[in-house]
Amino acid sequence: MLIVGELINTSRKAVSEAVEGKNAQYIQQVAREQLEAGANYIDVNCGNKVFNEVEYMQWLVTTIQEAVQAPLCIDSPNPQALEAGLALAKYGTPMINSITDEGPRFEAILPLVLKYKAKVVALCMDDHGMPETAADRMRVVDSLYGKLIAAGVKDDDIYFDPLVKPVSSVQTAGVEVLETIKLIKQNYSKVHFMCGLSNVSYGLPNRKVLNRLFVAHTMTLGMDGYILNPTDKSMMGVIYAGATLLGKDDYCMGYLKAHRKGLYEE
Amino acid sequence: MLIVGELINTSRKAVSEAVEGKNAQYIQQVAREQLEAGANYIDVNCGNKVFNEVEYMQWLVTTIQEAVQAPLCIDSPNPQALEAGLALAKYGTPMINSITDEGPRFEAILPLVLKYKAKVVALCMDDHGMPETAADRMRVVDSLYGKLIAAGVKDDDIYFDPLVKPVSSVQTAGVEVLETIKLIKQNYSKVHFMCGLSNVSYGLPNRKVLNRLFVAHTMTLGMDGYILNPTDKSMMGVIYAGATLLGKDDYCMGYLKAHRKGLYEE
Repeated sequence: MLIVGELINTSRKAVSEAVEGKNAQYIQQVAREQLEAGANYIDVNCGNKVFNEVEYMQWLVTTIQEAVQAPLCIDSPNPQALEAGLALAKYGTPMINSITDEGPRFEAILPLVLKYKAKVVALCMDDHGMPETAADRMRVVDSLYGKLIAAGVKDDDIYFDPLVKPVSSVQTAGVEVLETIKLIKQNYSKVHFMCGLSNVSYGLPNRKVLNRLFVAHTMTLGMDGYILNPTDKSMMGVIYAGATLLGKDDYCMGYLKAHRKGLYEE
Repeated sequence: MLIVGELINTSRKAVSEAVEGKNAQYIQQVAREQLEAGANYIDVNCGNKVFNEVEYMQWLVTTIQEAVQAPLCIDSPNPQALEAGLALAKYGTPMINSITDEGPRFEAILPLVLKYKAKVVALCMDDHGMPETAADRMRVVDSLYGKLIAAGVKDDDIYFDPLVKPVSSVQTAGVEVLETIKLIKQNYSKVHFMCGLSNVSYGLPNRKVLNRLFVAHTMTLGMDGYILNPTDKSMMGVIYAGATLLGKDDYCMGYLKAHRKGLYEE
């Protein structure tokens, strides 16, 4: 399981203020807390700062790496911001979030994947827009997989994001994602997955309950990576207990450790 | 989704005392509470009262039916106790829990299934004992399915119990059950499922967390019936939210109703 800590994102007010005010201490604290809570990668996203994104990305990557030696997930649709972050990222293998099968975006981001030998999140989206069904998603997956492999990217470095949409607007939004995961596992057994899934609960009450539960549903079918808040104990509790129930936790050690860390309320 | 309320079981101290003391009021209250909480069937189990099981079964079935007009799940390995309960059950279609592929047990219980046109829980167990792998379970499923269908039992009345064992003793105990559900769905698409799954967490702390999560994992693969405590709000919350995420809740009405009933803490 690969957990990308999502908290360093300027769409969050506290992070936005810290970036505007060059409050390195706050950013470094959020980075440390996420690692301590179990994150494997730290996401860095300042995509809503359109006019300063490159500068802020550089400052964030430098600032985070002064505090922690963690691999980073450089998160932007903007190739200039991605390159700015990747050029400075120095620990482990960086991750790019994300490439899509939209023509110009693919052309601009593929060279960065190759240049920085990065892991890459491949989002199920192309020039036809957002997919509805699993079959729509698989057309994008087939196309993206073919092009990435042809360019020399390894299966192990590809992380498909099935693109999660709200069940409140389309009843089958969840099952189409589950079917996509199943088909990707069947057809491309060596690639990985990565997604944020809070969209699934958009428009409904008790969103955290639905988000946690959708982690359990997707894990059942082989999802092996999430962008989430690792300091959310209940969410991490689902991840650890899920691994135990799904046979991926030797001697239940991960679960017992999570229990001792107080991740479960009852 | 079919929920069988498990609380009327003399292995629970309060129920045992109520049965010994002929405290009808307590039993009737437990029956009512389970129905109000969302149970579709009420399980009746006094199997640990070896010397009085038939008499207690008769008293329990009569007592419960004085309070609620609910279908009952008559739960015993003992054919005499099953028949005693079935003969008195008068609302809806009764359920027998359970038949197995153990020779004498099958021979004794099949006539009751036919006589009472009952739904039947078919437990994955035969004369070779408890199965380990999904393949072991499927051998029992294939045999039981063939014999039940040949005897005239309908697919819709068969509820396979994949037999859940603790992950603390065998790491793959959970995935073997999940694989069994997948195979049963593939090979016998019209049958149903029924099981109690608290065994999965035996020997581990925070058992309720694991039990709830295993409901989510098994639901993902098509499990459509559980024997559980319907007054456990968090557990029922998983059932309703799971239906929503898995595309089985029109307009999220079930989830929104559960939310209004206070089934979710955050």
